[in-house]
Amino acid sequence: MMTSRPSALLTDLYELTMAASYFQHRMFAPATFSVFVRSLPKDRGFLVAAGLDEVLHVLEAFTFTNEDIEFLRQTGRFATDFLEYLAQLRFTGEVYALPEGSLCFAQEPLLEITAPLIEAQLVETAVLNALHGQTLLASKAARSYAAATGRSLLDFSLRRTHSTDAGLAAARASYLAGFDGTSNVLASQRYGIPCYGTMAHSFIESFDDEEAAFAAYAETFPDDTALLIDTYDTVTGAQRAARVGQALLQRGHRLRGVRIDSGDLLTLSRATRLILDEAGLSFTRIYGSGGLNEYQVERLIRAGAPIDVFGIGTDLGVSQDAPSLDIAYKLVEYAGRPRLKLSTDKISLVGQKQIFRVHETKGTAERDLVGLRTESADSVAREVGVATDQVALLLHPVMVQGRIVQPLPTLYESRTRFLTGFTYLPPSVRTLLPEVPYSISLTRALSQLQQESVAQLRARYENA
Amino acid sequence: MMTSRPSALLTDLYELTMAASYFQHRMFAPATFSVFVRSLPKDRGFLVAAGLDEVLHVLEAFTFTNEDIEFLRQTGRFATDFLEYLAQLRFTGEVYALPEGSLCFAQEPLLEITAPLIEAQLVETAVLNALHGQTLLASKAARSYAAATGRSLLDFSLRRTHSTDAGLAAARASYLAGFDGTSNVLASQRYGIPCYGTMAHSFIESFDDEEAAFAAYAETFPDDTALLIDTYDTVTGAQRAARVGQALLQRGHRLRGVRIDSGDLLTLSRATRLILDEAGLSFTRIYGSGGLNEYQVERLIRAGAPIDVFGIGTDLGVSQDAPSLDIAYKLVEYAGRPRLKLSTDKISLVGQKQIFRVHETKGTAERDLVGLRTESADSVAREVGVATDQVALLLHPVMVQGRIVQPLPTLYESRTRFLTGFTYLPPSVRTLLPEVPYSISLTRALSQLQQESVAQLRARYENA
Repeated sequence: MMTSRPSALLTDLYELTMAASYFQHRMFAPATFSVFVRSLPKDRGFLVAAGLDEVLHVLEAFTFTNEDIEFLRQTGRFATDFLEYLAQLRFTGEVYALPEGSLCFAQEPLLEITAPLIEAQLVETAVLNALHGQTLLASKAARSYAAATGRSLLDFSLRRTHSTDAGLAAARASYLAGFDGTSNVLASQRYGIPCYGTMAHSFIESFDDEEAAFAAYAETFPDDTALLIDTYDTVTGAQRAARVGQALLQRGHRLRGVRIDSGDLLTLSRATRLILDEAGLSFTRIYGSGGLNEYQVERLIRAGAPIDVFGIGTDLGVSQDAPSLDIAYKLVEYAGRPRLKLSTDKISLVGQKQIFRVHETKGTAERDLVGLRTESADSVAREVGVATDQVALLLHPVMVQGRIVQPLPTLYESRTRFLTGFTYLPPSVRTLLPEVPYSISLTRALSQLQQESVAQLRARYENA
Repeated sequence: MMTSRPSALLTDLYELTMAASYFQHRMFAPATFSVFVRSLPKDRGFLVAAGLDEVLHVLEAFTFTNEDIEFLRQTGRFATDFLEYLAQLRFTGEVYALPEGSLCFAQEPLLEITAPLIEAQLVETAVLNALHGQTLLASKAARSYAAATGRSLLDFSLRRTHSTDAGLAAARASYLAGFDGTSNVLASQRYGIPCYGTMAHSFIESFDDEEAAFAAYAETFPDDTALLIDTYDTVTGAQRAARVGQALLQRGHRLRGVRIDSGDLLTLSRATRLILDEAGLSFTRIYGSGGLNEYQVERLIRAGAPIDVFGIGTDLGVSQDAPSLDIAYKLVEYAGRPRLKLSTDKISLVGQKQIFRVHETKGTAERDLVGLRTESADSVAREVGVATDQVALLLHPVMVQGRIVQPLPTLYESRTRFLTGFTYLPPSVRTLLPEVPYSISLTRALSQLQQESVAQLRARYENA
C-alpha cells in the first residue's frame, strides 16, 4: 500500500534495461501480459482477488520525475535518447481485471494488461507486488471468515507485518474478506474501516493493582471499555472485571467487553461467561486473542467457546502458513502473435483471455472455464450445455487508454462482492482443508490456440 | 520502511485509548519498555538486529498533525484536553539499543525505551513494526550469507514482498546481512545499495528467436549483459549465449553473465560452465535463480555447482520458513518500580538492562549475560572469571531527550558490523540447522532483582 506518490523507480532494474533495449530496437508494438497464480498454496481452496485499486492508481500516475531520470542518468547505464523517452512516458494501455473481492483460482488471470511493450514491461514489478501482497492477505483473511461462521473478526496485525504499508494492506485486505474492523488507526482513517481496541498488559501493570486499572480505564471510556483480564490470573481478572462492570451498570453504562489473550481460551471463556452472566453482564462480549489462526477459531467455535470476537494478529498479517503466492506476470501476446515459454512445465496460457464462471441453477459456482476474450457467455454456455444466464464473465475492462474506467467500487462494495461470492462457493472449496479442487478448464477455442501456439513455437525453435 | 513522513496514526487504537486514560489519571512518570524476541524460530541460531534507523527517525519525528487530531476528534472517543495534549506531544525519551547489524539472541533486549509513560506507550506499535520486519528479514538473509560461503548474493524479492515498503526493507536488510546487491532500483537510490539485473523471459519471447534476443540486448549493453538462457532449452541457450559472447569479445567486450532460472541448477550450471569455457568465456559468470532458498544454495555449493551469483527472491522477501518473530514490547519498569506479567510462562525481564557478551581470548563469542544497566564489564568479568577486555557491552545509548545521538552508522558501516560479528559467531550457531543454542544467562544482580520482583508481585497480588 503506497503511503505516498508511487515511484516509477520502485521496480527491478531489468525492467529498465529491457526497456532500453526494446527502445533501441524500436519495439513499440502492443503486448499483452497476464497475471495469474500458478498453483494454490497447500490446503487452500480459493483466492480472493485484491490489490487492483492500487494497481490502477499506480498505472494512472506512472511517470518518471526529473529526479528519477537524473538518478538513472548518473548510473551511467542508459543512453540519453532513452532517458528522454522515459521522461515523457505515460501508461497508455488497457487493463482487464477481476474486481477486488472476486473469488478466483489458480491459472485464472487476475489481470491482463495490453500496452506498448515498453509500458507493459516497465510496470511488471509494481503490478505484481500490489496484486501479490493484497491477494495473499485477503485470501488468508477469508479463511478466518470461513471459520468464524458469523462471529466477529478484528485485525490486530500491524505490529508484526513486514512493514507499515504491509500493515495497511493487511487491514484493508482483511476487511475486504469479511473482517469487521481493525486496530490500525491509519487504516481506519484512510479506508474508512471500523476501528476497535482494548488495552495492553502494560496498562494493567502501570497501576498498583488490576482492579484499579480496570476502574481507571472504565472511568475514561465508560461506554467503550474492553478489559484485558489475563495479566495475573484470568478467572480472578474476570471477577474483578465483573465488579467494574456492575459499578458501570449502576452509573448507567455497559461494559463492552473483556479480552482473554493467553491460556486455554475454551475453558477460560466459559468460566468468564459464567462470571459475567452471574453478575448481570450478559451483554458484555468476550474477546479472544493471542496467536490465533483460522484453525483455532474453527476449533474453539466447534467446541462451543463463548467467544464473541476474535482478534487475529500475526498469523493473518504475515499469512503465516503460506507467506507467498506463486504469482507470475507473463507475456502472452506481442505484435499480434501468441507468446510463451517452453523450457519447463510452467507453460502460461496464450492470448487475451476471459474467465467464464458457470453457476448451477440454484446459484452455486460449479466450474470455471478460461477462454478467449472474444468468446461470449452464449458460446461458452452452448459448449458446456447450460443456459446463457448461468455463465458470468469475470474479467472487466477497468482501464482504457491509461485512464481508470470510473467509478471504481468502494472498499465496502468490494467487501460485499466477496461476501456474496463466498456464499456461492461450493462448501467443499471454502472449507479450511479442501480435498476436491474447484473445476477449472479451458474453452475449446483457447485450448486450440494454445496447442497451435506450442506447436508453432516448437517448430520454429527446432528449425532455428 | 517509511516512504513518507511517518504518521503518528500508524498505531493500534489501544495505544491512544490507554494514553487517554493515563492522561486522565495524570500518570506521567517515566516508564521503561523492553523489546525482545521471546524465542527463535525453528532451526534458527541467531538474529541480526535491524530497523533501528527507522525507529529513531520515527521517534524523532513523532508528532500528531492538525489533520490527525481532527480525525481523532471526529471519532468522538477522546476528550478535548487530551487531544490538546496530543497536539503538542513530542517524544522526549531515551533509547538504548543494539546497533543495526549486531548478532543477538532470544530474550536479549533489541532496544529499551525510557520515557514518560504516555510517550513510551504511544510509540509501541511503530517501534515493534520496524524492528520486527527488518530484524526478521535481516536474520533470514544472514542464512543465505552463511550458506553462500563467499559466493555473491542478490536480492530479487521486490515483486513478492507483502508491500512495496516491505520490498525496500528486504533490499536494505539483505544488504545489511551480507548480500551484494539488489534488483530494486528505488532501494539502490535510497540506500546506496549496488543494483543488478539480467533480463526476463518476456524479453526473449518478444523476439523471433532466442539468439536474436541475446544479440539485441548485447548491442544495447555490450559491457553489462547477463543473458537468461532457460526460456526454451538451457543447454542450447548456453550455446547461443556463448556465440553472442564470442561476438562481443571480438568487438572488445566481455559478456558479464548468463542466468539459469529453472531446472536442475547443478547439472545445467556445469554444462553451461563447460560451454562458456570452451568458447573462451571463462570470465562470464553464471547466475542461478528460481525459487532458491539458503538450503538449496548450501547444497548447490557443496555439490560443486559452478554458480557465481545466487539471486534470491520470494523465500528471502517473505522469510518463507519463518515469516514472523515472537517479538514483544514489555513494560519492565514504571515510576521507579519493576513491572511484569505473571499469568503465563511469558515472563519478561524487569528493569533497565544491558547485554554483556563474553568473548574467548581468540575472539569467538562464547556466551552472553543479560544484566542490569548499572553493571559494568568489570563486574561481569569478575562474575564469570574472565578478563575485563573479554566482555563487551552491546546496548548503546542512541537517543537522549528525544534526539538521535549522532552520528548514526551508515548502512555500509552496519553491514561491516554484521560481517565482523558473523566471523565471531561460534560455527555451531551460524550453521543452517543449529543443534546447540548459544548460551544466554542472567547476571546475579538481574537474577536477584527478577526473583524479588516476582515475589513482591505475587505477595501483593495474593493480598489484593
